Amino acid sequence: MKVHVRRVPISVPGFTFAGVASGMKPSGRRDVALLASDLPAVVAAAFTQNRVVAAPVIVAREHARGGQARAVLVNSGIANACTGPRGLATVKAACAEAGRLLGVDPRAVLPCGTGKIGVQVPRVRFLAGIGAAYRALSPGSFWAAAEAITTTDAFPKAGVRCLDLGGSRVTLAAMAKGAGMIAPNMATLLVFVLTDARIAAGPLRSALGSALAGSFNAITVDGDTSTNDTTIALANGAANNVPPKAGSPAHRRFTASLTGLLADLARLVVLDGEGATRCIEIVVRGAQSARDAARVARAIGNSTLAKAAFYGGDPNWGRVLCAAGYAGVPMDPARCRVWIGRVPVVRGGVGCGNEIAAARAMRSREFRVTLDLGLGLGSARLLTADLSPAYVRFNSAYST
Amino acid sequence: MKVHVRRVPISVPGFTFAGVASGMKPSGRRDVALLASDLPAVVAAAFTQNRVVAAPVIVAREHARGGQARAVLVNSGIANACTGPRGLATVKAACAEAGRLLGVDPRAVLPCGTGKIGVQVPRVRFLAGIGAAYRALSPGSFWAAAEAITTTDAFPKAGVRCLDLGGSRVTLAAMAKGAGMIAPNMATLLVFVLTDARIAAGPLRSALGSALAGSFNAITVDGDTSTNDTTIALANGAANNVPPKAGSPAHRRFTASLTGLLADLARLVVLDGEGATRCIEIVVRGAQSARDAARVARAIGNSTLAKAAFYGGDPNWGRVLCAAGYAGVPMDPARCRVWIGRVPVVRGGVGCGNEIAAARAMRSREFRVTLDLGLGLGSARLLTADLSPAYVRFNSAYST
Repeated sequence: MKVHVRRVPISVPGFTFAGVASGMKPSGRRDVALLASDLPAVVAAAFTQNRVVAAPVIVAREHARGGQARAVLVNSGIANACTGPRGLATVKAACAEAGRLLGVDPRAVLPCGTGKIGVQVPRVRFLAGIGAAYRALSPGSFWAAAEAITTTDAFPKAGVRCLDLGGSRVTLAAMAKGAGMIAPNMATLLVFVLTDARIAAGPLRSALGSALAGSFNAITVDGDTSTNDTTIALANGAANNVPPKAGSPAHRRFTASLTGLLADLARLVVLDGEGATRCIEIVVRGAQSARDAARVARAIGNSTLAKAAFYGGDPNWGRVLCAAGYAGVPMDPARCRVWIGRVPVVRGGVGCGNEIAAARAMRSREFRVTLDLGLGLGSARLLTADLSPAYVRFNSAYST
Repeated sequence: MKVHVRRVPISVPGFTFAGVASGMKPSGRRDVALLASDLPAVVAAAFTQNRVVAAPVIVAREHARGGQARAVLVNSGIANACTGPRGLATVKAACAEAGRLLGVDPRAVLPCGTGKIGVQVPRVRFLAGIGAAYRALSPGSFWAAAEAITTTDAFPKAGVRCLDLGGSRVTLAAMAKGAGMIAPNMATLLVFVLTDARIAAGPLRSALGSALAGSFNAITVDGDTSTNDTTIALANGAANNVPPKAGSPAHRRFTASLTGLLADLARLVVLDGEGATRCIEIVVRGAQSARDAARVARAIGNSTLAKAAFYGGDPNWGRVLCAAGYAGVPMDPARCRVWIGRVPVVRGGVGCGNEIAAARAMRSREFRVTLDLGLGLGSARLLTADLSPAYVRFNSAYST
């Protein structure tokens, strides 16, 4: 979907960025990104829960365990998944090269990849790209890096927030990449958060976990959890603030700010869903628990029939109730109410006959579908894309 | 998909059939079916596991509990789901009318509906249709009834088998309906089995359960379990055979014959999947259990990305491994092997470079994808349809 994203200049004290073209993408577009911190940065990270994980995920998981890092290194266009020992060796060589150039331990480099599964990354080209990226590093190249991490994305996704924290002004910036294979469990495709805040690993991890729950873990495009999902937050402490304690008001404000930032990017990822023409907010309430509500929201948000109806602007609420009915949680149709936008379409499990008004509400590019199960206080929210013929056409000819 | 199904004449001793047009379908096509047994028939039945169930399912479930029935009554075009007390009253009035005409207890009539959710069945028209169906009942109208139960199906689906059982020749005939919203848990859309075999309720139930596990419960079109799925088997005993005892060789032959019959129809349902252009057999083996294998097969068979690749004839095996990786069962990519048709494409979790031969294997309308997890002896099989732009177009404008 065409979305106008204003590219406000973004910089984060103590960080430099680069996005260059190494020639790995047939299109010749930027395909190597480097995000570097002048100071050792505290790390929080979340990775895909798929059992098939790409080589860079294996290495990044290991490197992130140290709790500190100096750089994130990304190649786009090739996922480096299902590439065996050779793919793993390429990632290690890449981290070694980036570490050598930056003058840091290779274990302080967190590698990420995204793109086609089952293809080897051309090592010589990648290493040359890392050299070019190192030379291009600058505080003002945030958007170049955000571009370099994209693959099928129609536009780069990034945002920035500032807040006062422990006596200093701190910056929170984030970039995200993703347009398909999106149904994260814990992380999402690629999301990088860079901040100059001084914050300990524990509070950073909990802030990131809670921000993801309210943003990237509450979206779905096609229900396919990728092999490469990675979220990394780096906090380099350049702002010299008093570090927020876990659970303190300052920590809550930091978490809220991060959640808002990531929620904005998550919405952009859904709007950029492959072939998507609409972004639908599924709100489920009245469930017996928040967990039940989330399962129902996900059943609706992943139903190909419901998503096809969203594409057509067809107020076919039967498909919404039907998907809720197989979500595997307690549900009594006679207690259900459904709204499309603000138009009630189901009361007591039976249609209200407002289809024409509902179809009108579905004409806009973003609308809400609300299901009240009438059983309790549990609620959940999920953003989903519609399913269009263009999605299928696009994904039927990706590898060959 | 265009499939040529030869309409062999089908009749079952002691049964009469009718399929008529009552005017409920805007197309004017047949929309009321009646299947009647001259003798009280033993019943086995399976219904949708969706928590949202249509009014006819509520009533049929209750009527089937008696263990005996005389007729199956179907209206097509309107599901009579999410229609509240009024929808329920219509079903009861319809059973009463059919019972009155047939001279049997209304509780011996098993009602079914299929079609649009949330719309009331026009009662006067339906009752008139039942009258017309009653007058049209004849032993030779099997295919008329098979047509009358269809909605978006491109063709009616039916089959027949004969076997020697307990000293008599018995007939097993079945008709099925379904082309979308197909991911049955226990039953499938509509499947009716008519036999003149004499068989007790217990052995009939176990034969049907095992036949469904190997047929309709092993297919998926779009992962959406319908509100109306119903399978009914009626055995009227007109063949006067010695009833097979549960677990006896005769019972095993009866079960095998029923399984073969339903597997044929299940394949036709996938071939007729809305917008489908291919029927793919997913075989998973080497899992730690059959249950694990089935979960992996279903993750692959329901992955929109894998299905879009099947549509495009694209040997994108990464999507197959990726879907297996999020199925939530033990899996080690390094042990995985994948074949498309007979072409090995993955060994040790890494591509074998046979993409061209694999793409050739995907040119045919039906092909097999095999995944060996290399962990144990569990295996499973699932038929799935591909996902085409036509599916989306079709389902984006169904209700309005």
